[in-house]
Amino acid sequence: MTGNVIVLGGDGFCGWPTALHLSQLGYDVTIVDNLSRRKIDIELGCKSLTPIATVEQRLNAWKEVTGKQIDFVNLNIAEDYHQLRDLIIDVEPQTIVHFAEQRAAPYSMKSPTHKRYTVDNNINGTHNVLCAIVESGVDVHLVHLGTMGVYGYGTAGMAVPEGYLHIFVDVEGTTKEVDIPYPSNPGSIYHMTKTLDALLFYYYNKNDELRVTDLHQGIVWGTNTDETLLHPHLVNRFDYEGDYGTVLNRFLVQAAVGHPLTVYGTGGQTRAFINIRDTVRCIALAVTNPPKKGERVKIFNQTTETHRVRDLAELVSSLTGADVRYYVNPRKEDLENELVVKNDGFLELGLQPITLSEGLLEEVVDVATKYRDRCDASKILTDSRWREDIPLDHIGSEIPAMLEEDFIAAD
Amino acid sequence: MTGNVIVLGGDGFCGWPTALHLSQLGYDVTIVDNLSRRKIDIELGCKSLTPIATVEQRLNAWKEVTGKQIDFVNLNIAEDYHQLRDLIIDVEPQTIVHFAEQRAAPYSMKSPTHKRYTVDNNINGTHNVLCAIVESGVDVHLVHLGTMGVYGYGTAGMAVPEGYLHIFVDVEGTTKEVDIPYPSNPGSIYHMTKTLDALLFYYYNKNDELRVTDLHQGIVWGTNTDETLLHPHLVNRFDYEGDYGTVLNRFLVQAAVGHPLTVYGTGGQTRAFINIRDTVRCIALAVTNPPKKGERVKIFNQTTETHRVRDLAELVSSLTGADVRYYVNPRKEDLENELVVKNDGFLELGLQPITLSEGLLEEVVDVATKYRDRCDASKILTDSRWREDIPLDHIGSEIPAMLEEDFIAAD
Repeated sequence: MTGNVIVLGGDGFCGWPTALHLSQLGYDVTIVDNLSRRKIDIELGCKSLTPIATVEQRLNAWKEVTGKQIDFVNLNIAEDYHQLRDLIIDVEPQTIVHFAEQRAAPYSMKSPTHKRYTVDNNINGTHNVLCAIVESGVDVHLVHLGTMGVYGYGTAGMAVPEGYLHIFVDVEGTTKEVDIPYPSNPGSIYHMTKTLDALLFYYYNKNDELRVTDLHQGIVWGTNTDETLLHPHLVNRFDYEGDYGTVLNRFLVQAAVGHPLTVYGTGGQTRAFINIRDTVRCIALAVTNPPKKGERVKIFNQTTETHRVRDLAELVSSLTGADVRYYVNPRKEDLENELVVKNDGFLELGLQPITLSEGLLEEVVDVATKYRDRCDASKILTDSRWREDIPLDHIGSEIPAMLEEDFIAAD
Repeated sequence: MTGNVIVLGGDGFCGWPTALHLSQLGYDVTIVDNLSRRKIDIELGCKSLTPIATVEQRLNAWKEVTGKQIDFVNLNIAEDYHQLRDLIIDVEPQTIVHFAEQRAAPYSMKSPTHKRYTVDNNINGTHNVLCAIVESGVDVHLVHLGTMGVYGYGTAGMAVPEGYLHIFVDVEGTTKEVDIPYPSNPGSIYHMTKTLDALLFYYYNKNDELRVTDLHQGIVWGTNTDETLLHPHLVNRFDYEGDYGTVLNRFLVQAAVGHPLTVYGTGGQTRAFINIRDTVRCIALAVTNPPKKGERVKIFNQTTETHRVRDLAELVSSLTGADVRYYVNPRKEDLENELVVKNDGFLELGLQPITLSEGLLEEVVDVATKYRDRCDASKILTDSRWREDIPLDHIGSEIPAMLEEDFIAAD
């Protein structure tokens, strides 16, 4: 594979292993990142469970191990529009992969300041990228990391299609059939910003014929990939705290440090999952299979399996002996939902999904155990809440008994 | 009518007559405005055809004529979040009417700077209002000025419903019926921001049970209302230039100054219209008929009739003797479209629409004629364009002959 690729947010949890994977495949990679995720670590008084190296150390190690050069530009795409535009003109990327958004739902719900930051940062960031591509005149394919959360969950028993819904509408007694963008139903401010992104893509695709692929990703688990294992300085970040930690990774760390597994509500939420190794493979497939000029926004459900949260907790418990505990749910969501997701797009492009297996879970447990002394147990539960009417002192509290009314109250 | 109402953008073309009308009806009105529209006049080197007074002169005149007090707060809702929140806590409004957005499609397409300003200003402004209402704890009904443009035009021969579409979906062989938000299809960056607003409303209504009414307004024509006619300092603004001037008002000024009527493309675009007097009545109806707590976002099509642009040009021509000329269309839109719009919501609330009639057109012609010396003819055509592949020197050019291929090229 050859050509120039810019990875926006290339220092983050998904961006970093993606940048390495694309570099390994032969692309000339430029990372753009303002290091906001590292700064949020400082704000939250917490850090990656794995000891991540600085960007400079990371890139030096990559060069040392592989001989490949990855460039790094520190800029804020939501603010530094002209630098971004000029970079696109300079680099002439065939693809821009866009991870550069605030990506934690609980963080987006922490306070009005966090809600406003998430909206301002994510929408201006995405819009700047689109506007800069058009202004640059470079024929860029934009690959965007979205989320399964744009669909909302529990979609009327229907398998969630890949972005578009085929509907029948009555027009004066005649039935018309048409494909529409799947109606969005976000569950947090963060998820809402991704539904706004989708409308930005829709518009720029229609008006400017921009080629866009939007990846509706499930919840990522795992930490390392073939590339991040090549050198200690290449290790990927591992978030275990209540805001940025993804559910399965959090369970595995909790087990490693002897904390009960923190199930919110009944754990009846069914969610879509993907291993980080599949994330980087899916993005490589998206990069090599761009939509044609004039084609509508290409949408993939970037996910490989679905699980109920309490089933995951039971699985981790059986593997590690950890207790499972049920906490007051800070979110506003259905207590229980079914979820069936179509992911034919990537399967047709040859993805062979890594599904949950004890072997891969143990790999993560090993990482968690190795670094458990770096875990600050006080950060395991979020202090975010979705509604003002959940008392703050209920957040982080165990549900006293498995009584139905408690769950209803908690929801 | 009693109670406190905040009118965001209350110094603008729709906001000002609305503020007066609500004050006249008995509401205690506070106008919030950062005077951005007056500053854009300076940027564009143009001004309202009518000589509008300063805000202070306006409010003094209103007090002098009616004895009623309207308060004014100069703040930028997209930036001054904490002042906005504190104002809501102080005023405890039962309703906030939100006009405070950049509202011209051609202006939003002028350059990357204008695109980015429109997105940043409109989305952060609307989100700040929503966030501030929730944080304030005040039970506010938000009434938002949206646009018919969120639907896109030419919607498969279907009468455009009021915000929600009833669809049939196949779920494993069974047909399910469901109401979804009408799929949006914006035609400019400006219109796109209104579709983003709609998702913000959807989310805050769902998560925080905020009561929201969204008004999908047609193209406004006319200038004065009963209240703005009460004193010369109360006169409403009248935009005639290519960016902010609305089509029918522009035709009437063009006729008054002896400029040909500027039809873009074939003039086959069918659009929805409303007179400014009906705008203020509709908003009063929306204010007095809020949705219930827990009710979904209430959406009205705030429009009273539809017309094809070339028919309007012919009507104005027959009334005034003006020539009709066809110009290269800077927009990306269908050459011809049908449009049927449902507006049952306001009719059921008692609206008796003012429709286009020679009498009312003549009222506007009188205003245009009275102030025609204030018209700068060089500002009549926009220099905005929707696509880079329309040569800049084609913008503002007459189409040489009524040849079909010219129109296709222009589109």
